[in-house]
Amino acid sequence: MAEKKKLTALSELGEFGLIEHLTKNIKLKNASSLKGVGDDAAVIGEGDGVKLVTTDLLIEGIHFDMVYTPLRHLGYKAVVVNLSDIAAMNGKAEQVTFSVSLSSKYSLEAIEELYKGAYLACETYGVDLVGGDTTASPAGLFIAVTAIGTAEKDRVVYRNTARKNDLICVSGDLGSAYMGLLILEREKKAYKANPEMQPRLSGHEYLLERQLKPEARIDILKALAGAKVLPTAMIDISDGLASDVMHIGKQSRLGCTLYEDKLPINQDTMKLCQDFDISSVTAALNGGEDYELLFTVAQEDYEKIKDIMGISIIGHMSDFSEGMHLVTKLGQQIALQAQGWDALKK
Amino acid sequence: MAEKKKLTALSELGEFGLIEHLTKNIKLKNASSLKGVGDDAAVIGEGDGVKLVTTDLLIEGIHFDMVYTPLRHLGYKAVVVNLSDIAAMNGKAEQVTFSVSLSSKYSLEAIEELYKGAYLACETYGVDLVGGDTTASPAGLFIAVTAIGTAEKDRVVYRNTARKNDLICVSGDLGSAYMGLLILEREKKAYKANPEMQPRLSGHEYLLERQLKPEARIDILKALAGAKVLPTAMIDISDGLASDVMHIGKQSRLGCTLYEDKLPINQDTMKLCQDFDISSVTAALNGGEDYELLFTVAQEDYEKIKDIMGISIIGHMSDFSEGMHLVTKLGQQIALQAQGWDALKK
Repeated sequence: MAEKKKLTALSELGEFGLIEHLTKNIKLKNASSLKGVGDDAAVIGEGDGVKLVTTDLLIEGIHFDMVYTPLRHLGYKAVVVNLSDIAAMNGKAEQVTFSVSLSSKYSLEAIEELYKGAYLACETYGVDLVGGDTTASPAGLFIAVTAIGTAEKDRVVYRNTARKNDLICVSGDLGSAYMGLLILEREKKAYKANPEMQPRLSGHEYLLERQLKPEARIDILKALAGAKVLPTAMIDISDGLASDVMHIGKQSRLGCTLYEDKLPINQDTMKLCQDFDISSVTAALNGGEDYELLFTVAQEDYEKIKDIMGISIIGHMSDFSEGMHLVTKLGQQIALQAQGWDALKK
Repeated sequence: MAEKKKLTALSELGEFGLIEHLTKNIKLKNASSLKGVGDDAAVIGEGDGVKLVTTDLLIEGIHFDMVYTPLRHLGYKAVVVNLSDIAAMNGKAEQVTFSVSLSSKYSLEAIEELYKGAYLACETYGVDLVGGDTTASPAGLFIAVTAIGTAEKDRVVYRNTARKNDLICVSGDLGSAYMGLLILEREKKAYKANPEMQPRLSGHEYLLERQLKPEARIDILKALAGAKVLPTAMIDISDGLASDVMHIGKQSRLGCTLYEDKLPINQDTMKLCQDFDISSVTAALNGGEDYELLFTVAQEDYEKIKDIMGISIIGHMSDFSEGMHLVTKLGQQIALQAQGWDALKK
């Protein structure tokens, strides 16, 4: 009798391992498929102008919790996280499709709120909602958004094109979205223990907004273009700085060094990390969902970028053999680990 | 005290009503957004060549039942239903993104089967898989596919451009996919009653394949191009002939007449309708999921299309005031009703 073959649990691979496993044998056939799986967006086109295409899923119970997620913010965020992917290719988003699968527990008024948020994001970023699918779900709310952008072919910025000695830069601050999530989870727990209790959210507006209503950093692309700087590589921070800088490192076949004292961490994040007794460096490295731009620039562009508001230089690329690590304030070298948010292991 | 406002159940609107309600106020802003919501695909671009973009969701428990759906077929179908939308715009699909949200009950081997099906569809239709998202779900399997195609701008065929007296044509046969579904549902019921029972599927291969592994009718587009016929309007049949011909009628501001004796119905479908004691005309009109092309052509193209294999002329467009109906074999006029498959009412 044949022995029953043992099946492999998805958790053994994790999200990145699974995607790598499932897509490693793809060979692109169409001349218009310039870049497929493996970057923030696919690159499609024939001439000097190309189209960028990216898709993200947002799943109730995995990516958001209806207990504390306003539907309007959720619709906004679902669009913005895709616009952020287009931005991370140095492109301009112009269209989105917005697809929703929802159970009968949602009323029309609830879905209107969701769409209001999506439309607000479209208006804010000058994007058109051009399609989508709307259908029932047996349970919960599933959102699938595809964004389409344009770029000049020779100005698309990939993940795998960083060069040795390039400066590593990041926009905004890191770890705040994660701290916003911790506040919401804390208040959910308190509410469950005592439904009469008022949530303690006041004073945390910045962190909550970072979690619930992130923005795509189009302003940073404009500032870079204004300074005549084209990044050598770029990615948006969705899984956490550590995980995302490692994507640039691995795909560019380089090592990298980050400096703890250069990491941009907001005062509110600092303070809350003390309250929660967690390291703000951990929040910055592994928190995820910041939707900031992480990019590399040539050393000779230092003068052009050093005074741009909202950009921090946090390290540099090195030889692959040197590995990827963080230098702490005490001068210790700690190897980076992609402990980023991995929904498949939840 | 303020009266609590009554919330509106989604079932009151249905899928088409909900989409119409949520998208009616969209105003396209970007010059590249040539056509938004309301056709089989959005049309995007600046020059003579345009891009077509379409998205479809396939949800476990709504669109498919894991009891009788082989995962390889499901992956194939998820891609094909999107390619069919691109075909219905007279475009050539070149890329897809394939996104999956799945619960931990699925093993790696199961997901490999799903992707094998998706890749087989990509290979069969010369399409590249260029991206997607892979994430956990709290329960069940959710698939979101976006297809991107190309077309010459002046050869894109919309739904709203049929003209009075145009001939209404359909490819292949109608109602077979629905009958395939009825067989599968019958055997599921029998299996639940008696798990020892062998499913009675033999002899129904054609109908089962129509349900489980549909194809996009690229061959019909080639035949039409070969005969130098450009349809005046086109849609693919996903919701059922009645529902889909009414889309063309409403959007073109025309009426239409279909003839029962012209409807292409396969012998297997005919026979099974007798066994199930349902009308084969009902199956053809309202079954859905045939993924055949429904299109209109000018009267003067009659000679060019009448001998093309796999195309049936089933009626003609008329004045809006004449309404939309079917003439039965007995000469009765029956008003068409969009009783098509409406997942939100399930």
